[in-house]
Amino acid sequence: MTSVLPPRTAAAVPAAFTDRHIGIGPDAQARMLEVVGYDSVEALVETAVPASIHVQPRATSSIPPAATEAEALAELRELATANRSARPLIGLGYYDTFTPSVIARNVLENPSWYTAYTPYQPEISQGRLEALINFQTMVTDLTGLATANASMLDESTAVVEGMLVARRASKAKTDVFLVDVDALPQTKALLHHRAAAVGIRIEETSFAGDLPEAFGAFVQYPGATGRVWDFSAVAEAVHAAGGLVVAAADLLALTLLRSPGALGADVAVGTTQRFGVPLGFGGPHAGYMAVRAGLERQLPGRLVGVSQDAVGAPAYRLSLQTREQHIRREKATSNICTAQVLLAVIAAMYAVYHGPDGLRAIATRVAQKADALASALRSYDLTLASDAFFDTVRVHVPGRAHDVVDRARERGYQLLWVDDVTVGVSVDETTTDADIAAVLDAFGLSNVELGEGEALRGVDGALHRDDEYLTHPVFHAHRSETAMMRYLKSLADRDYALDRGMIPLGSCTMKLNAATEMAAVSWPEFSRVHPFAPEADVHGYLEMIDQLERWLAEVTGYDAVSLQPNAGSQGELAGLLAIRGYHLANGDIERTVCLIPSSAHGTNAASAILAGMKVVVVACDEAGNVDLGDLRAKIAQHADALSALMITYPSTHGVYEHDVLEITQAVHDAGGQVYVDGANLNALLGFARFGDLGGDVSHLNLHKTFAIPHGGGGPGVGPVAAKAHLAPYLPSHPFSQRADHAGGTFDGGPVSAAPHGSAGILPISWAYVRMMGAEGLRQATAAAVLSANYIAVRLREHYPVLYAGEGGLVAHECILDLRPLKEQTGVTVDDVAKRLIDYGFHAPTMSFPVAGTLMVEPTESEDLAELDRFVDAMIAIKREALAVAAGEWPADDNPLVNAPHTAETVVVGKWGHPYSRETAVYPVRSLIRGKYWPPVRRIDQAYGDRNLVCSCPPPEAFA
Amino acid sequence: MTSVLPPRTAAAVPAAFTDRHIGIGPDAQARMLEVVGYDSVEALVETAVPASIHVQPRATSSIPPAATEAEALAELRELATANRSARPLIGLGYYDTFTPSVIARNVLENPSWYTAYTPYQPEISQGRLEALINFQTMVTDLTGLATANASMLDESTAVVEGMLVARRASKAKTDVFLVDVDALPQTKALLHHRAAAVGIRIEETSFAGDLPEAFGAFVQYPGATGRVWDFSAVAEAVHAAGGLVVAAADLLALTLLRSPGALGADVAVGTTQRFGVPLGFGGPHAGYMAVRAGLERQLPGRLVGVSQDAVGAPAYRLSLQTREQHIRREKATSNICTAQVLLAVIAAMYAVYHGPDGLRAIATRVAQKADALASALRSYDLTLASDAFFDTVRVHVPGRAHDVVDRARERGYQLLWVDDVTVGVSVDETTTDADIAAVLDAFGLSNVELGEGEALRGVDGALHRDDEYLTHPVFHAHRSETAMMRYLKSLADRDYALDRGMIPLGSCTMKLNAATEMAAVSWPEFSRVHPFAPEADVHGYLEMIDQLERWLAEVTGYDAVSLQPNAGSQGELAGLLAIRGYHLANGDIERTVCLIPSSAHGTNAASAILAGMKVVVVACDEAGNVDLGDLRAKIAQHADALSALMITYPSTHGVYEHDVLEITQAVHDAGGQVYVDGANLNALLGFARFGDLGGDVSHLNLHKTFAIPHGGGGPGVGPVAAKAHLAPYLPSHPFSQRADHAGGTFDGGPVSAAPHGSAGILPISWAYVRMMGAEGLRQATAAAVLSANYIAVRLREHYPVLYAGEGGLVAHECILDLRPLKEQTGVTVDDVAKRLIDYGFHAPTMSFPVAGTLMVEPTESEDLAELDRFVDAMIAIKREALAVAAGEWPADDNPLVNAPHTAETVVVGKWGHPYSRETAVYPVRSLIRGKYWPPVRRIDQAYGDRNLVCSCPPPEAFA
Repeated sequence: MTSVLPPRTAAAVPAAFTDRHIGIGPDAQARMLEVVGYDSVEALVETAVPASIHVQPRATSSIPPAATEAEALAELRELATANRSARPLIGLGYYDTFTPSVIARNVLENPSWYTAYTPYQPEISQGRLEALINFQTMVTDLTGLATANASMLDESTAVVEGMLVARRASKAKTDVFLVDVDALPQTKALLHHRAAAVGIRIEETSFAGDLPEAFGAFVQYPGATGRVWDFSAVAEAVHAAGGLVVAAADLLALTLLRSPGALGADVAVGTTQRFGVPLGFGGPHAGYMAVRAGLERQLPGRLVGVSQDAVGAPAYRLSLQTREQHIRREKATSNICTAQVLLAVIAAMYAVYHGPDGLRAIATRVAQKADALASALRSYDLTLASDAFFDTVRVHVPGRAHDVVDRARERGYQLLWVDDVTVGVSVDETTTDADIAAVLDAFGLSNVELGEGEALRGVDGALHRDDEYLTHPVFHAHRSETAMMRYLKSLADRDYALDRGMIPLGSCTMKLNAATEMAAVSWPEFSRVHPFAPEADVHGYLEMIDQLERWLAEVTGYDAVSLQPNAGSQGELAGLLAIRGYHLANGDIERTVCLIPSSAHGTNAASAILAGMKVVVVACDEAGNVDLGDLRAKIAQHADALSALMITYPSTHGVYEHDVLEITQAVHDAGGQVYVDGANLNALLGFARFGDLGGDVSHLNLHKTFAIPHGGGGPGVGPVAAKAHLAPYLPSHPFSQRADHAGGTFDGGPVSAAPHGSAGILPISWAYVRMMGAEGLRQATAAAVLSANYIAVRLREHYPVLYAGEGGLVAHECILDLRPLKEQTGVTVDDVAKRLIDYGFHAPTMSFPVAGTLMVEPTESEDLAELDRFVDAMIAIKREALAVAAGEWPADDNPLVNAPHTAETVVVGKWGHPYSRETAVYPVRSLIRGKYWPPVRRIDQAYGDRNLVCSCPPPEAFA
Repeated sequence: MTSVLPPRTAAAVPAAFTDRHIGIGPDAQARMLEVVGYDSVEALVETAVPASIHVQPRATSSIPPAATEAEALAELRELATANRSARPLIGLGYYDTFTPSVIARNVLENPSWYTAYTPYQPEISQGRLEALINFQTMVTDLTGLATANASMLDESTAVVEGMLVARRASKAKTDVFLVDVDALPQTKALLHHRAAAVGIRIEETSFAGDLPEAFGAFVQYPGATGRVWDFSAVAEAVHAAGGLVVAAADLLALTLLRSPGALGADVAVGTTQRFGVPLGFGGPHAGYMAVRAGLERQLPGRLVGVSQDAVGAPAYRLSLQTREQHIRREKATSNICTAQVLLAVIAAMYAVYHGPDGLRAIATRVAQKADALASALRSYDLTLASDAFFDTVRVHVPGRAHDVVDRARERGYQLLWVDDVTVGVSVDETTTDADIAAVLDAFGLSNVELGEGEALRGVDGALHRDDEYLTHPVFHAHRSETAMMRYLKSLADRDYALDRGMIPLGSCTMKLNAATEMAAVSWPEFSRVHPFAPEADVHGYLEMIDQLERWLAEVTGYDAVSLQPNAGSQGELAGLLAIRGYHLANGDIERTVCLIPSSAHGTNAASAILAGMKVVVVACDEAGNVDLGDLRAKIAQHADALSALMITYPSTHGVYEHDVLEITQAVHDAGGQVYVDGANLNALLGFARFGDLGGDVSHLNLHKTFAIPHGGGGPGVGPVAAKAHLAPYLPSHPFSQRADHAGGTFDGGPVSAAPHGSAGILPISWAYVRMMGAEGLRQATAAAVLSANYIAVRLREHYPVLYAGEGGLVAHECILDLRPLKEQTGVTVDDVAKRLIDYGFHAPTMSFPVAGTLMVEPTESEDLAELDRFVDAMIAIKREALAVAAGEWPADDNPLVNAPHTAETVVVGKWGHPYSRETAVYPVRSLIRGKYWPPVRRIDQAYGDRNLVCSCPPPEAFA
């Protein structure tokens, strides 16, 4: 094996991004190796990774040698320039928008927001939780429903989830779900694909006349054609039959139109993209879902609620987490386990900044311009599909549709070609009178005098909105940029993100998100591109996507990669649906059993259920390895029903299983497919490949291994990678610019609303691979493994390390067993996690995959000083626990059970604890020079679930 | 008068930037007017501004109607595109450089850094003070001298200041200053222009043979031609004659070359631009100056030093402030009163990030490539001016120089045309082998095989550096991007900037620096442009500059504007030099007396001295108004010697003087010129114009009135504006792309190193004017005046408001007299200022223009909630002071004298004060929800001056 970590020579320093990304230089490595007891990093990794699966560095690679940051930026500029700048008026759920600069700079481009983790530690996440509760309040107010969640992946998947909510909550005994013929085409495509897998029958309808029996109906409001109509009669009829109504509604339109709640919808879904979230060639954007009272507990995804902390102060946290698939596993009703937090924050702040008056003004202007356009078209005897519209007009141009669209494109505008006789035009907040004139010119109408337009001129007055919304003070208090900037800063100040210190979350890989990687995301050539733009206008994006697909295929040992899934869960689902499609195409309709080891992440089972599979659990040994005997027994038992095995490698226990080749062989021998969960790819990259392990398909988490930031809980990107035989079943999309990929023609149904998923952030992973090169990726893996083992060795005399492989080595993470500590001292995992906050750390992953443990993943990006700071904190906390056991502090009043300590705790009132204020908040002296102060005490989780409040509390609550 | 503040209507909200910039909407205005006692803003401003000077809104204007933020960005994109992208290899003190993305994003694009004020309140500026002491350490280490200041405006002005230091410190009795013939041309031009005004005779020399008697000599190291030579013998000779040696040295070269200190320089100056600071068409960049031991007290500008706080902890602060011109006034030796803090921070962080090894590697690569180029040229028999070079080669191409430069330009490269026979090429850290090959191709040499090059091949080995530098741990601890990001964040966390709350600094106008205004500064089309690029490559910049010049001329009532001065002080000097030039051209060589009112800002006098004038002070009445009688007496007394009157309007006392027209008339009648200091333009814009008041010339502070951020103490931009008769004497520049401006042909000498000064940040002011429009600028003035009067009225019963004009109104700021409070309670201005920190505020301007006062300028950007929070804090502090007076708290132990209180104060050790911890740090309950914690206690200023330490203290100092 060649050297895996380069010396940090003088010559390399200014050039090599690898040396900036990897936290430990040669001196640090030498010291760490001494502690771990190996002579070289090579020897360490060679021992840790089973020799049977080693891959040798490739002689030729699709990945070019590592670029410097400057070179990568220059190449990105070239790719950007290869996208043709045009004004998209295509609509269909995607609209150009102005991201207020103050929000772009202080949220989207600020590591305090984008490097934050999911707010599972609510005490150190109050800022983004407040932003999310603003989001939920915005959604509930505008939709007129009781409760909204903290965002969905996109509108179309939200509709699918809405359909599933309806099936669960409906009393109707039927598998039929009615779908609006005027739904967005991509949503229809998703509904058909997803429904088929779970035995739901879709019936499209225009809702005229009597409706068939159905457990629910889906209405698009306004419709894809732009039509605004009153669906309240339909809602009544569906309700009468025991069904539920799901409405997809445009939030900007809702500032002027009666809310879906008022019209009888039980569930409202949609996107918040046009609230300041850049188009980004399709994403990431925050979808939304809101439900009427009584359905709260049916909501998929994350829900932010208000609870209280240890001293009764109001505090935000994630509510009803028990609903989540990581608890419910094969009983899960949804596999959604993330949100689009960063984008939801942007959308919420757009509403905060504009306020209800501002939003109404924007919507009015949009509707006025659409009306001005329509009036001009009509005055020249052109016919429109509907006169009742908000922002979209469909124009009847028999035989001329192509011509009109082409003429518009020549003028720099993208219109929607519907069919040979119909062209669609959607107005957005960026549209000017000059734009309207140019569009009219494309229709052959020049020098038309434009009227001012009248908003909703053709819409029935009963549909005009007359109730108030966004009345909470937060939507009125930040109207100047100065005030907005400070509000954003004050929220960021309450949170702990990677810019403060290590976030050693096992299985989540909180590595560096480099500024150079993030840069291109903000460039208009990437950010203002419509996902359905014509192929000729998006060559830069397509080239980047093609390269990234090839690179990811190579490093994982697969033949084909689809970047469409916009979260790991969706990649997983896409992979399982591909397996389903493969078996069906082979006539193996009975192959529906999915084997899942008991140690697997809960999402595996949830995704299998949603792919129409039956989950059968395979036993694991005490080290978390698959029990080969039980596996063979289960295979034999299910024989021809075997569809797939899902396996995570290295395992969720952070260990390289040695039997992996035998395991995958056994499944293949039985005619099954092997799904390798890519969650832990950070431990493997450059050393072994899923494809070589026997995997047929995998999903990757670009937001873990490939440097896309977690954004406080999203966006995620979850590409699916497969062998050639599964490629035909990978996701397609009705609007995809290219069905043919490097790995073949993808012909499965779509899993995301946009053809390339969250394309807008792919420049991040592209830049990461480009700047690391194949060798750098390999070095990163080695550094991650070295760092995890260093922590394991330094901590194991204080906390047992639960699992280890060959030579007592762990992979890229280690599980610290805190159960003996609890037995000995009464101090719980929760106490330790919250006490870490006092020490200035984000806790590791708690009680996953084993209750009573902490799983630590340092990643390759932390430097030795930070690793030591963490280890020292853990050792100090152990000492504190022992002091409790020794009776120095009472079990119910000590720095651990009372953690975290706020500044208020040590300032206000009498100090009645048996330990000092200094022990409380400065357990380590270096904290005096700079300390993160948690804004609340430990939060009462149960209280929040018992008293569910999911919108902004009144300001007095904080007085 | 028409309405000056628009209603914030629904329709206006999403569009109007004015409503985002101005903090107070119509509701707030109504409430504030009620408090102030006026019916309308119009009535208020009409009363405050003397009717005699009112200007009516113009029917036609060069300023277009206000653009939205999106429109302004689109126009900026067009201007950016009009600059031709090229790789500059021109050199002469300006080099392309890579700003590390982590520094660009987290400093240059982060309001926590760029909206900060000058660290006059050191307790809340420890982060940027640490960054600056890193800068000083970097400079002292690399130059081999004892003490460096916190940056200079640019290299050429630093040379001028170096010359003045030499004159002050030299024992030689002569006015001669020797200047290296191989100095940068722009530096020579500045030296000649500036020397003439103060009676210094410049003699250019090649230092061969015997030297004439001189008080100092200036050496360029390496020279403009690239030549590296050993000037130690020259230094010995100059020293022997009692003179001092000033060397301008390239910091990157110094990583490989013996330091100027080691060669005998007494003073080293230069630029730090190529340490990651974007070219920006000439600036802003941080110049530097370092001096040998014994000259510390001669250093101009700002000097950061280490002192200790109230509990003996080390703390940074500005040292030796008594040297500054605002104290010394007409005894001043320099008019430099600012630094380039934001840029100095970037340069220092570049060194922190790369460390000595990284810098040496960058320099080595640069020198290798230069050598590879030189070798290739020589192998084709081309002759070089010198073989001893670092990064620059001068090539002898008789008759072909134009041709070579043109060919290079066609290939996308800018070379230096020296003369018909000579071309210069300077290599920088961005230069690649492909670049070298393209340059060779321009010389007619294609397909040359490039060698690797040998750094400093032709340089005498004795000049190769062998001592260590940057040994302090800070230059070794932040090598990964993660570590660097956290270091920057940890420093920002220690500081108070506009993103936390109001900075109500009288005379400094800390208004919003909008994100949209800042955006274009980062665009490569603006940031990577060489100041001496050919005219054809910079049309976008020239167009922007032309527009901004016209706009500024219009709003100030002048005919011509030069944007060259890169600080207010330099604008002032340029204006006075223009007056000097005008009198000289008229043969009025005896007109050298400059009348300055006693209330004037100290810089006025300092600039007058440096313009060769004699300062005569004019008395003021007790309200700070010019004493008209004394003025007439002084005019009569000096008669034909009268050169100019300098006057600030509104006055430094924050009042609109009513006699201004009489004053200016009296000066004109006597043949003098009127200089109106533009410091307070924020109180006048749109309502009156300096030109109409009788001003002949003014400087403006774009970093005050025109939204350029203060950057923690620079950059500043100080354009000079003049009537047509003075236009010929405005600054020219040897490399200016255009001598002809809208206001005429400028033919005075240069005052900055670059032709257009800090051109790189002009997009900020351009965007500000473009988005406000003439009407918006007027509204901003009105809002600023209303807010100042609101504060004055609310506070006057607690603190006397020192000056007021008509109707008891102040202008845009108000002076609170704290002397009665001190008399009554013993509580000082300092106590109140530091106590404001505990309340979460930056103090107002202290003891200027009157000792014992606070001058409050809220600006138009603060909202009413923030104004009220400030007023309430001031009232609460008054109550605390009265409690001291009443004996509730001892005079030497109360929350005021002990302010500010750190978190450590209330946590560590016993609490022995007669007030509670809560009173100490949470005097207002709302602080519990979010508090800025100062990192140190009150700093002992005198201690730091007595024990001067101006480089990084060892880490143990903080243990």
